[in-house]
Amino acid sequence: MSSDLAKLYYFHGRGRVQQSRWAMAAAKIPFTNVCLSTSAEFAQLCEVPGKLSYGQVPMLELPDGQCLSQSMAIVRHATRVGELYGTGHEEAARVDEVLEGIQDARGPIISFPFMNAQEACSRLHGSVQRFFPCFEALIERNASPPYAVGTALTIADVLLAELVHSTLEALTATFGDEAGSQVLGPFPKCRAVHAHVLALPEITQFMNGPNWFAFPAGQVGKDYVRNVQTVLN
Amino acid sequence: MSSDLAKLYYFHGRGRVQQSRWAMAAAKIPFTNVCLSTSAEFAQLCEVPGKLSYGQVPMLELPDGQCLSQSMAIVRHATRVGELYGTGHEEAARVDEVLEGIQDARGPIISFPFMNAQEACSRLHGSVQRFFPCFEALIERNASPPYAVGTALTIADVLLAELVHSTLEALTATFGDEAGSQVLGPFPKCRAVHAHVLALPEITQFMNGPNWFAFPAGQVGKDYVRNVQTVLN
Repeated sequence: MSSDLAKLYYFHGRGRVQQSRWAMAAAKIPFTNVCLSTSAEFAQLCEVPGKLSYGQVPMLELPDGQCLSQSMAIVRHATRVGELYGTGHEEAARVDEVLEGIQDARGPIISFPFMNAQEACSRLHGSVQRFFPCFEALIERNASPPYAVGTALTIADVLLAELVHSTLEALTATFGDEAGSQVLGPFPKCRAVHAHVLALPEITQFMNGPNWFAFPAGQVGKDYVRNVQTVLN
Repeated sequence: MSSDLAKLYYFHGRGRVQQSRWAMAAAKIPFTNVCLSTSAEFAQLCEVPGKLSYGQVPMLELPDGQCLSQSMAIVRHATRVGELYGTGHEEAARVDEVLEGIQDARGPIISFPFMNAQEACSRLHGSVQRFFPCFEALIERNASPPYAVGTALTIADVLLAELVHSTLEALTATFGDEAGSQVLGPFPKCRAVHAHVLALPEITQFMNGPNWFAFPAGQVGKDYVRNVQTVLN
């Protein structure tokens, strides 16, 4: 069975590969996670020529054995296969513009399990206030709600939805149910993208399937940090 | 004249837009630099809706008035227009893998003028030792020297050449002529990409034309830092 599936190598958790997982799901590319547990497993993977181009995970192994490193290279690969780059050069450029903005905004999500939760949420709140007005303006300028670019789903929508979702999870886990809707209240267009993407059957299936990991708050976050440290040390 | 040209808005120097300039040149897209000098100019640009998507430069204004932010979105736009993404999805994915590695490696080049030069070179040397063996292996695996991906020029080659070039400039400016060739000596495949790209007529023309800025060492770096601070404050 597994030889028919693409394999996504990473740690036991979300981290830098989470956007790749959303992208693979949205592109309807079947995949399975291969989660590293020990430094020996990681060393073994590093030793095979052509597996880890930069000696790091995430890495996507395609069914034909080809390996692709770098989370955003994996995202863009899924985007091309799933035809989620919009129509023509101009929409592709707009999609890239949104993706790069998301990368700038998303740092506090990545560092969340490695920091004090309240401090991480404070940084996340700052990031929301800095970037979400820009995303609202981009969606408004596109004038085809809920889409950020063009008149159909693109990876820009998918990763905006992921950012909204992770932000809600971080705030809810730290300050309770009200916190998320309070912080994201002023950004109805981003919330509409989120709602639209979450209702897609392929995303519903992903979020209820084996490729979904819980947000790294509390004990989940502690276990994830220990896993990363064990594998890399 | 200027209405026929794409305009690249940034500070008076290299910084984050330098890769976009190499990409535009390699893609043979005529462009001119619009260099900000005052905070009033920047504020004025921020006020026009649709100009700066994230309230920051670089921004590329196309001849039709469309504006595109984010340096790597500009790089990828030039890449598509110039057909420098290779052939097919697999080569495009390989190109992205190289571009993301370059981004990981390139931090010390960006921060160079904002740091002590010797400290910056020490970080740069560390980055070369960490990433250049990976680039050598990728070029070797591709088996069509000097190209990093496929059998013709891609943006991966262009931005690898830019990285080699900036690295040589940083080391030469700080430690003299020998330092660059000493550090890059063990990486003949990267040096071959650099030599190949530098010999392209469009790159020769770029490097000898008005869109070329000197490496930000010494007084050039000090002037650049003052320019950035003046515009942003």
